[in-house]
Amino acid sequence: MYAKGWYVCAMSDELGNEPIGRMILEQPVVIWRDGAGKPVVLEDRCVHRRLPLSKGRLVDGRLQCGYHGLEYVGSGQCVRIPGQDNVPPRAQAKSYPVAEGQGWIFAWIGDPADAAATPVPNVAEKVGAPGWRTIRGRLPIKCNHLLVLDNLLDLSHLAYVHGTITGNVAVAENARVETKVNGNRVRVTRVMEDVEAAMMYAEFGGFDRLNRWQLTEYIPPCYYFINNGSEQVSAGPVAPERVDGQAEWGFQVYHGITPENRNTTHQFWQISYPESACPANRLAEFDDLLIKVLYEDLYVYEAQQESIELIGPEGRDGEVNPVIAINADAGLNQARQILQRLSRAV
Amino acid sequence: MYAKGWYVCAMSDELGNEPIGRMILEQPVVIWRDGAGKPVVLEDRCVHRRLPLSKGRLVDGRLQCGYHGLEYVGSGQCVRIPGQDNVPPRAQAKSYPVAEGQGWIFAWIGDPADAAATPVPNVAEKVGAPGWRTIRGRLPIKCNHLLVLDNLLDLSHLAYVHGTITGNVAVAENARVETKVNGNRVRVTRVMEDVEAAMMYAEFGGFDRLNRWQLTEYIPPCYYFINNGSEQVSAGPVAPERVDGQAEWGFQVYHGITPENRNTTHQFWQISYPESACPANRLAEFDDLLIKVLYEDLYVYEAQQESIELIGPEGRDGEVNPVIAINADAGLNQARQILQRLSRAV
Amino acid sequence: MYAKGWYVCAMSDELGNEPIGRMILEQPVVIWRDGAGKPVVLEDRCVHRRLPLSKGRLVDGRLQCGYHGLEYVGSGQCVRIPGQDNVPPRAQAKSYPVAEGQGWIFAWIGDPADAAATPVPNVAEKVGAPGWRTIRGRLPIKCNHLLVLDNLLDLSHLAYVHGTITGNVAVAENARVETKVNGNRVRVTRVMEDVEAAMMYAEFGGFDRLNRWQLTEYIPPCYYFINNGSEQVSAGPVAPERVDGQAEWGFQVYHGITPENRNTTHQFWQISYPESACPANRLAEFDDLLIKVLYEDLYVYEAQQESIELIGPEGRDGEVNPVIAINADAGLNQARQILQRLSRAV
Repeated sequence: MYAKGWYVCAMSDELGNEPIGRMILEQPVVIWRDGAGKPVVLEDRCVHRRLPLSKGRLVDGRLQCGYHGLEYVGSGQCVRIPGQDNVPPRAQAKSYPVAEGQGWIFAWIGDPADAAATPVPNVAEKVGAPGWRTIRGRLPIKCNHLLVLDNLLDLSHLAYVHGTITGNVAVAENARVETKVNGNRVRVTRVMEDVEAAMMYAEFGGFDRLNRWQLTEYIPPCYYFINNGSEQVSAGPVAPERVDGQAEWGFQVYHGITPENRNTTHQFWQISYPESACPANRLAEFDDLLIKVLYEDLYVYEAQQESIELIGPEGRDGEVNPVIAINADAGLNQARQILQRLSRAV
Repeated sequence: MYAKGWYVCAMSDELGNEPIGRMILEQPVVIWRDGAGKPVVLEDRCVHRRLPLSKGRLVDGRLQCGYHGLEYVGSGQCVRIPGQDNVPPRAQAKSYPVAEGQGWIFAWIGDPADAAATPVPNVAEKVGAPGWRTIRGRLPIKCNHLLVLDNLLDLSHLAYVHGTITGNVAVAENARVETKVNGNRVRVTRVMEDVEAAMMYAEFGGFDRLNRWQLTEYIPPCYYFINNGSEQVSAGPVAPERVDGQAEWGFQVYHGITPENRNTTHQFWQISYPESACPANRLAEFDDLLIKVLYEDLYVYEAQQESIELIGPEGRDGEVNPVIAINADAGLNQARQILQRLSRAV
Repeated sequence: MYAKGWYVCAMSDELGNEPIGRMILEQPVVIWRDGAGKPVVLEDRCVHRRLPLSKGRLVDGRLQCGYHGLEYVGSGQCVRIPGQDNVPPRAQAKSYPVAEGQGWIFAWIGDPADAAATPVPNVAEKVGAPGWRTIRGRLPIKCNHLLVLDNLLDLSHLAYVHGTITGNVAVAENARVETKVNGNRVRVTRVMEDVEAAMMYAEFGGFDRLNRWQLTEYIPPCYYFINNGSEQVSAGPVAPERVDGQAEWGFQVYHGITPENRNTTHQFWQISYPESACPANRLAEFDDLLIKVLYEDLYVYEAQQESIELIGPEGRDGEVNPVIAINADAGLNQARQILQRLSRAV
């Protein structure tokens, strides 16, 4: 039902002295750091009477159940049962392969034997880069994760959903759009030349009219790399190889979109931008605008989801079931096909 | 499952510069006015990616989707897709026949071909009449619409549910009740002679004892016309032909009861009364009392609904399943049979 | 599905001038006192149009429906229908056998013919006893009632769930535990000798180290008698026959655990203690601590319930499904088997 792979389950800086309980891909997990600081992901239930282990506490690098005090080490093995000497070997909580990097903690969903041979995708390339600033968070969304895929692979919606912040009509009306599939990755570029600057481009980039570009790369099963760049119209036509950069003004967005359940999703988001993109005294305002964009999308996602949960006149529910396709759907249709193929292969 | 017919979907004065999204008879609709001011009712989903159209905005008499900007005209046809020249002809949202009048907007549920031949029932006869005042609203109720039918066709409940406002024990104990079926309409009259005046009749009608009458007419599929009148006892026995009028003091109530889902209902209510029924300086108090009556019924409806959703000892749920019938059920039983017959005929 | 028997449905002091509506064992009941003060338990629906009778009012020792005024006497017979002379004999609400005592009102669930031959269990033995004080309440819990059984028959959890009030690590680590089955009753005793005093034992009992004991007796189908006692270590080994008493300091707890639905439960609790257990000026603090213990358990119950409602990797849901048993499970496993046998016998 879901493609196997590395999924973001937490942000690195979330994990402190308390275990975190969370549902990912319909599986309850508890996330914590062992005595050596290594992140651990276990099934979130005590092998004894099913209290979630996330209700327990960390004691000397072990996770102690909050009901009868059973203690677990990072492998998931229970090593202590208060009031008795022996611990049955099968007192073992399911354990998930774990990785950490790029600001995120990843859990492997699928056969654990496959984890070691599968690299964690490199998505959030500017996190920690000199001269760059990053903000991040987790946004719980009441929608199926495919609605987020649809959104991120068709950025024409900036015109209507984010029309007062990062978009304007030109984004939908005047873009040169290209979709390329490379293996399991989908790359959509949108170039707009000599168009009016949307609000943030005017306010922080100082543009009146501009050349502007967007790049979305879908990296299965659940990652989206987005680059935004812009420059003066006088710089001339935008060469294809330039859409990976920011030129005069831009920013990058990285999303780890982890299904929680069929109809709810964790959006682990990071936004990185060069320090030069915003004056030091306007950072709070700048960040607020970009975060507001996330909530504008959330409003759309949740309204769509409510709509698809109703049975339509065609008698099918639970999916988008579009009556028509539009030109801008090219990228999202490619990505949906790839993900569908990978999900069947599990 | 539901009888075909004209159903109230909105109040005329609700429709301003924003589209309204609403569920009627288990179908999501968006209600708006086109450039000529004509009301429009469409299926509330964009043909593209299912965002409810009610989340969009009105632009030059068209309804623009809030996600990718598709634009619809009153026929439901999509006439514009930003970023491309052609619009596929099948980009058409389902459209409902519409009528407007009596303070209400009506949508036709059923085969659209039948709408033109079916007149909109005339229910709210005093709306807009000289010398009359009307208040109106929409009350969402968590109950099946048949519970409202039961209530409105047996007004003996005024004694127990509205005993401090419009009812007293005499309404249940001392009424001469007649039920008449005329085609698909049911007419229940209740005449009480020489009884104590209920609160509003005493306070605003100036009565101590009085002759009083109530008339409920059920007009399928979902309309209820109610007339209330009263006069001094000295006027003598109440002749049958007088129950249509108010005589010395009275008011009329009109209900459009539109199912939302199986277990939720829109009560579109209007109350009209002669200006003489209430002194100009007590209008707010007067209206508040009548509206309180609606909420007293809502309390009963929702408690009944919770009760019928439990499985009773008889193993059947979801319906009233009375163990006994009482005399006062005569009218509601007739109306339920008619509506059942009409619902099967769809 | 449930064992037949007497179940607590209310506290005696809850019943005033208003009927109480409540669900017990998946059956909606209305509880009230008739004109002679005798408690009555009826099915909570009017035989006419299913308004819960608990929405009505008490009039001259009868229960009057709040919708059309039907009146019921304590036998469940409807004796009056306003507006008509005859009352059909089958206008009879289902009636439950009732008993009252020990601070509680009990309803008989099962064949009514069996009630008279079945004595109400004597559980709350110190309620009303001279020199003893009792507090009581009803706690609604979102869990299956068996999770409460598990908890009360394995008091080792005091170490981890109530570690700042009535427990400490010694309760789990240093107890001599015995489980005895006597007919359908299960008795678990826990004796801890020469251990550190938990908070309340130190604060109110004045102990540093102490001998301490706990006794839980399970009385089917749903009662739990708990005795707590303690004394100075110098008193020597705790003889088995002493665990029924409090010795220097202790208290008793009585629980009537009445299922509401499959996944929700009423905990009718009473706590009795000798007046000497707490100085008169600290009663509020003392009671608050004991009530906080109930809420600490509730937190565990509801987290467990959420966990068992998820489908585990083993594909079975809705039950605890432990991977391992621990020594401390002996008593609860016995009690679960007895209750399962009694439930099948219905």
